[in-house]
Amino acid sequence: MKASQFYISTLKEAPADAEVVSHQLMTRAGMIKKLGAGVYTYMPMGLRVIRKVEAIVREEMNRAGAVECVMPVVQPGELWSESGRFQTMGPELLRVQDRHERDFVIQPTSEEAVTDIARQDLRSYKQLPKNLYQIQTKFRDERRPRFGLMRGREFIMKDAYSFDRDEASAKVSYQVMAKAYRAIFDRFGLTYRAVAADSGAIGGDLSEEFQVIASTGEDAIVYSTGSDYAANMEKAEALKPTGPRGAATQAMTKTLTPGKSTCADVAELLQLPLKQTVKSLVLATDQTDEDGKVVKSQVWLLLLRGDHDMNEIKVSKVPGLDQGFRFATVPEILEHFGTKPGYLGPIGLKQPVKLVADREVALMADWVCGANEEDFHLTGVNWGRDLPEPDAVADIRNVVPGDAAPDGKGTLAIERGIEIGHIFYLGTKYSTAMDATFLAEDGKPRHFEMGCYGIGITRLPAAAIEQNHDARGIIWPDALAPFTVVICPVGMDRSEAVKAAAEALYAELMAAGVDVILDDRGERPGAMFADWELIGVPHRVTIGDKSLTDGVVEYQRRRDTAATKVPAAEIAAFVKGWLAA
Amino acid sequence: MKASQFYISTLKEAPADAEVVSHQLMTRAGMIKKLGAGVYTYMPMGLRVIRKVEAIVREEMNRAGAVECVMPVVQPGELWSESGRFQTMGPELLRVQDRHERDFVIQPTSEEAVTDIARQDLRSYKQLPKNLYQIQTKFRDERRPRFGLMRGREFIMKDAYSFDRDEASAKVSYQVMAKAYRAIFDRFGLTYRAVAADSGAIGGDLSEEFQVIASTGEDAIVYSTGSDYAANMEKAEALKPTGPRGAATQAMTKTLTPGKSTCADVAELLQLPLKQTVKSLVLATDQTDEDGKVVKSQVWLLLLRGDHDMNEIKVSKVPGLDQGFRFATVPEILEHFGTKPGYLGPIGLKQPVKLVADREVALMADWVCGANEEDFHLTGVNWGRDLPEPDAVADIRNVVPGDAAPDGKGTLAIERGIEIGHIFYLGTKYSTAMDATFLAEDGKPRHFEMGCYGIGITRLPAAAIEQNHDARGIIWPDALAPFTVVICPVGMDRSEAVKAAAEALYAELMAAGVDVILDDRGERPGAMFADWELIGVPHRVTIGDKSLTDGVVEYQRRRDTAATKVPAAEIAAFVKGWLAA
Repeated sequence: MKASQFYISTLKEAPADAEVVSHQLMTRAGMIKKLGAGVYTYMPMGLRVIRKVEAIVREEMNRAGAVECVMPVVQPGELWSESGRFQTMGPELLRVQDRHERDFVIQPTSEEAVTDIARQDLRSYKQLPKNLYQIQTKFRDERRPRFGLMRGREFIMKDAYSFDRDEASAKVSYQVMAKAYRAIFDRFGLTYRAVAADSGAIGGDLSEEFQVIASTGEDAIVYSTGSDYAANMEKAEALKPTGPRGAATQAMTKTLTPGKSTCADVAELLQLPLKQTVKSLVLATDQTDEDGKVVKSQVWLLLLRGDHDMNEIKVSKVPGLDQGFRFATVPEILEHFGTKPGYLGPIGLKQPVKLVADREVALMADWVCGANEEDFHLTGVNWGRDLPEPDAVADIRNVVPGDAAPDGKGTLAIERGIEIGHIFYLGTKYSTAMDATFLAEDGKPRHFEMGCYGIGITRLPAAAIEQNHDARGIIWPDALAPFTVVICPVGMDRSEAVKAAAEALYAELMAAGVDVILDDRGERPGAMFADWELIGVPHRVTIGDKSLTDGVVEYQRRRDTAATKVPAAEIAAFVKGWLAA
Repeated sequence: MKASQFYISTLKEAPADAEVVSHQLMTRAGMIKKLGAGVYTYMPMGLRVIRKVEAIVREEMNRAGAVECVMPVVQPGELWSESGRFQTMGPELLRVQDRHERDFVIQPTSEEAVTDIARQDLRSYKQLPKNLYQIQTKFRDERRPRFGLMRGREFIMKDAYSFDRDEASAKVSYQVMAKAYRAIFDRFGLTYRAVAADSGAIGGDLSEEFQVIASTGEDAIVYSTGSDYAANMEKAEALKPTGPRGAATQAMTKTLTPGKSTCADVAELLQLPLKQTVKSLVLATDQTDEDGKVVKSQVWLLLLRGDHDMNEIKVSKVPGLDQGFRFATVPEILEHFGTKPGYLGPIGLKQPVKLVADREVALMADWVCGANEEDFHLTGVNWGRDLPEPDAVADIRNVVPGDAAPDGKGTLAIERGIEIGHIFYLGTKYSTAMDATFLAEDGKPRHFEMGCYGIGITRLPAAAIEQNHDARGIIWPDALAPFTVVICPVGMDRSEAVKAAAEALYAELMAAGVDVILDDRGERPGAMFADWELIGVPHRVTIGDKSLTDGVVEYQRRRDTAATKVPAAEIAAFVKGWLAA
């Protein structure tokens, strides 16, 4: 490609609404252009990156035996009513009525559409397993779209769906995808982690997220310094503490703690370690009648160590809390505890509550908690002696750095990641809802066992940039770069020798199949170099009149701080050597 | 590709709603699957065809200097208000509100989005010309979607938009596209015509449609048997008849024609040629006040030869009718003619009307028309003697086969076509409405001169099938086929020799880059052949145990009625020879 025939449009300044570096740099490099809130045009320079992502994903999906199709962007609401999602999904599902006032949705994913295909086409177990995927436009009406392609409303996703005859086979299909995803992410040339994720109502361990590591990532991901263990924060298990519980050494004492409504403040005031304090969180569950009216509520008190945070996903698995819960209201708290939040505790309640202790708290002795009286806490609290054993003991906290890894090998560390892929065993959730069956070997209809597998195609370049950039711009891995090599001739319009050398190198690299661009725009060197450093092309060859008379040209990789002089006659072989490496 | 790893799903019966052969065959061949009215999934087999169309279009667009981008499917209504299309487009524009009740549209085309890009990026004449294109999902909410991909609601279109500094340069950009379109359509391997089309309000000759010839086509296209002249019916000009007008030889006579309300019936009754009769069509134009209320209407009488039909586009160019017209109401007709339609004519009116005669009618003598009295016509009518000269004489009719070509060379013939491409010089219509300017060489802002260029990517396979099919199924040209070659081993599971020969040929063709599929499903020969004839793969190699012992395999092209025996050792070279031809 010659730059004069391409579309290059770089900007000195990032738009005011660009909060993160990938949004800033993609806009400045002319890769995306905002059309509306969360809606972007993929400009020619950005589209080249997206196409490279797509090509890698497509190759590896095909290699793994998945077959590509394309499902509609605009899908009938009827179908979405079959799964129930038309009703249950929130406003992030963009709903629209056609001219005949029939309901449609703009697809955020395609479980319903693909299940509808399977129930028509896949009639026998002999046709299974099958995995259908698409690379297609999606829409999610985010309440607050931001961060450019990182959290846009319209985006491109690769979504794949596997259909299997039974759970064992579905798990094989899942593992085939898990392997393909590793192959895909390896090829991108990014630092990433595959982390265990929560699989929700389905249960089991078959859910993994693929996280590109970046300090700006929205997700906390947990890994062990001593093993392969990795999980997202929602999922990461705290190793079960080993007992026995410490013995009581103090008497329970009511202590004045005026205005100290947080564990940290209380620990400081009392000169105790924070981990000696216990925080009280009050939840509630509702029982409803057939019309959805609340007929009865139950209040729950959760106890966590003062230095720990509640993990909502873990809480949602505690028996009794697993059908949904909410935070208690202030009137409910006053009714049960007789005081306002900040001084709550499990002792001296006005009304009985269900008591759940984190596993760490259950083993504590001589601990500190609220006294259920404003400006007072209790110290020296001990299980059994001062209050009965809790109704339930469970892992309900987020892990913290330094915790022992749940596999017992090493300790946990936490880093930030950007979720780019997610693979998920679905079971028969959709096939049951939509009554999608095949004839099993015994001649009886059976619901498909399904899996779904997503990759955020347009989010990936943004994540790559969050991980790889410097003050001058983007630093693409070779596999994702819009062009692999840029040839920058200096003074091409003045020097026939420069022009000839540039054109010759361009022709030779093109012939070798190298994705090269020749900057023949006639820009001044400073502006030209700034453009290509902003755009982030990984390899640059500069051809100048002066060095050419010495028979050399300059080669510089995007991360290099200085150029290397290379004999002009050897530059093509030199570049090809780097690319092959 | 091996069939066992692909997704093949053929049907014996077409769905009940499939009215046209392409819809029937694409569904039966498992290329598309209906998700809702006018909304289809492109199944793996169909997607391969679509990708081949896209690849050809992309290559030729790039070769012509256009640059690819992708604009959003969901576009802000605000932008569409700038051009006015948000208000003026009918219900075929799918409008949607997001969670914040802001207006959006699902793009049917992208003039607004691309003009918004140009006015931000293209600031100087030095950056022009530029041509941006996308291959992207579109939606048009057809009142009655039908015919599968031929008139669906969601479809894929390639739309390109050129930006130029002045009209002369824009016309060059248009011609570059005209040439690229011919290159594209030549590569598809279909019979097509590029025909002149009406350019609407813009004027000039810069609008061409690319029509795939098919007897089932919705469009009538007109071409000369003696020259390159071709136009669509709307545009095709009737050669101006040469005078002088014939002299009157008959007296005007009122004739009883009971119940004969059509020209054909009257001609038959009176035993006159149909071309001696004149039909009367009554139109009206309305004058409105500032609030859009009709304050005054004018009735128009159009006279056409009995064997000719009115051409609405041509009528819309007659001065006085060029701001919009409608058919007159029955009360208006009664008020001006004193009788009901069927017996109308230009003589003996109750109220004056504007009279427009087709050019042919203006030269007629001794003609027949309605007498403005039920059951009566006038014969021997002559201009000047029996009625004054018309207010206007114009070409207002559709051409008919046998008309002289407008370039004077040969006569016109008519065939049916399916519109697949359209190129159009837009002028400054959008750039003015959206105030999109660049700085011209004189330093002053100037509106872009634009062109737009579309190809119906998903409609093309349907058109190809309408043109190329037989009772057994689709007959793809090589360039569009989902697979170019299919290898059909007979009894692969029983014969090691067949299996080995099939695998060896498959490997050799794959290595040569041939798009080949090996049918390893183990189907019986009849079912296997029926599938591939339905799917329409152009080249088939059948490998059977019996012939293999004689050292031969069978080769058959999709249109061949019988197979050719080819020595097994030569088959790979033989197939490659056919493909190279």
